[in-house]
Amino acid sequence: MPGQIFNQLTLVGCGLIGSSIARVAREKGVVGKIVVADPSEPVRERVTALGLADEVTGDIGAAVAEADLVIFATPVLAIGEAMALAAGDLKPGAIVSDVGSVKGTVADAMATHAPAGVFVIPGHPIAGTEHSGPDAGFAELFDGRWTILTPLDNEDPHYAEAVARLSAFWRACGAQVEVMDAAHHDLVLAITSHLPHLIAYNIVGTASDLEGVTEGEVMKYSAGGFRDFTRIAASDPTMWRDIFVANKDAVLEVLGRFTEDLQALQRAIRWGEAEKLHDLFTRTRAIRRGVIALGQESAEPNFGRDRGKH
Amino acid sequence: MPGQIFNQLTLVGCGLIGSSIARVAREKGVVGKIVVADPSEPVRERVTALGLADEVTGDIGAAVAEADLVIFATPVLAIGEAMALAAGDLKPGAIVSDVGSVKGTVADAMATHAPAGVFVIPGHPIAGTEHSGPDAGFAELFDGRWTILTPLDNEDPHYAEAVARLSAFWRACGAQVEVMDAAHHDLVLAITSHLPHLIAYNIVGTASDLEGVTEGEVMKYSAGGFRDFTRIAASDPTMWRDIFVANKDAVLEVLGRFTEDLQALQRAIRWGEAEKLHDLFTRTRAIRRGVIALGQESAEPNFGRDRGKH
Repeated sequence: MPGQIFNQLTLVGCGLIGSSIARVAREKGVVGKIVVADPSEPVRERVTALGLADEVTGDIGAAVAEADLVIFATPVLAIGEAMALAAGDLKPGAIVSDVGSVKGTVADAMATHAPAGVFVIPGHPIAGTEHSGPDAGFAELFDGRWTILTPLDNEDPHYAEAVARLSAFWRACGAQVEVMDAAHHDLVLAITSHLPHLIAYNIVGTASDLEGVTEGEVMKYSAGGFRDFTRIAASDPTMWRDIFVANKDAVLEVLGRFTEDLQALQRAIRWGEAEKLHDLFTRTRAIRRGVIALGQESAEPNFGRDRGKH
Repeated sequence: MPGQIFNQLTLVGCGLIGSSIARVAREKGVVGKIVVADPSEPVRERVTALGLADEVTGDIGAAVAEADLVIFATPVLAIGEAMALAAGDLKPGAIVSDVGSVKGTVADAMATHAPAGVFVIPGHPIAGTEHSGPDAGFAELFDGRWTILTPLDNEDPHYAEAVARLSAFWRACGAQVEVMDAAHHDLVLAITSHLPHLIAYNIVGTASDLEGVTEGEVMKYSAGGFRDFTRIAASDPTMWRDIFVANKDAVLEVLGRFTEDLQALQRAIRWGEAEKLHDLFTRTRAIRRGVIALGQESAEPNFGRDRGKH
């Protein structure tokens, strides 16, 4: 057991990710006390009923006042406002982090509102399922996954200590920790997460509008590949809307590359260039082997169809 | 138990699908004898070692001579040639079918070579995994899945009887059976299976070529959505090359729709049209609920990451 790392953790927002942090932090004993602030009354009721926190409130200021670690676990465009509401009540020396899938614009929003003496360390655990809300979380969500921290430019040795403590927290929650700059994070996530979601949303939309094929047929015969896309395209709409607004530049860049490649593939199909197709399809198999070798595909999948609400 | 429906089943080709048919047909006792013809010596050796058939041969003519049911389970562009090799030895009254993911061009290829008195009934079980070869098959592959039959224009009442027998065979193997015309099948599969695979191959290719992000990073941080695409893009390259060649027209049509929709989405991101994004992302959730309600997403997934070769 890693032992207690923070006296009080305050989670602002308690959906899939926030509630998973609450569960694992308690299970592993890495924090003394857990406080949840969520603006939604139904969410607060579920958090209370599930016994996920020692205190549950709608008042962000009150929730953060005694916190050593504050984690914003809201959709990314809500983080700046939440930070502004919290700022006046934060304790000197408190660590403030988040779990957003975009780091550049989110780091700016947090840093803008942060009072002096508070350590802002943007973060992102790369884990999730297509389910949402406090009931969907589970303590094992971060096991073997990566949490990326994107520290600000800050030469203060206390800041470096704070980064080390936050890293220890995430490791105690089961994650591996990597540090990189925000712009690189946003490009890596644009290709590994944001573009896949965009494509999944798009193909499910295309299918539901296609003349000549009913929605019922699309669902009925989805076992040939389509249903994996329906799972990804079932992810929380507000969370994903915010991500595409907040990471616009990187998403448009990788989308441009994707479209160019797709045009080449379309041409190969049109001209019956069988060997070109075969070469690409062979090359992509090697990537799959790498994903399995790195353990990012586990026997009990994290981003899985069998977890979450039952 | 449904009891024996055919005396002898001959499988031409014994990879994932062929070997799954052999396993379930034996397990359920729906055929008296199973003969496998496969041109690959390594495949024949595995089929023998696994005890999947009563006879294993490389000689298609010898394999089909006594068969009441012949199923071609090869990549789709190989079916015509295999049918030509089998034609001279087929028994009058034999049923000849296949499992190809394209029906229009494949039905033509089979019908062209079929001798009189043989019943050609093209078929397609919509089931699979990303794994290939005789070791990857399993008897439960077709459970609760749909097999589509696309009968030829044939008013002979014996032909209708043959369709009924083949339907009974597939139901005994665990599948539900649907009958439709080949062109409709090819359009439905283009959107529910062929386009999803094309997109997955394309995005994995784009990711591996992207400057600024290493292949190692793409694999390491794949839990955010990308790894589902790597699984789909690990499917057999020869099988998929053939599908895109054989179903060119329907694939290009749905790809055109997909590209138009993607351009609209790209524009919405560029202009920050948050509500447009939110509306689409909300709409696609409903499709997911339909997939689950129809039972096409099972607790033990068929197109799953945990089945097949380990």
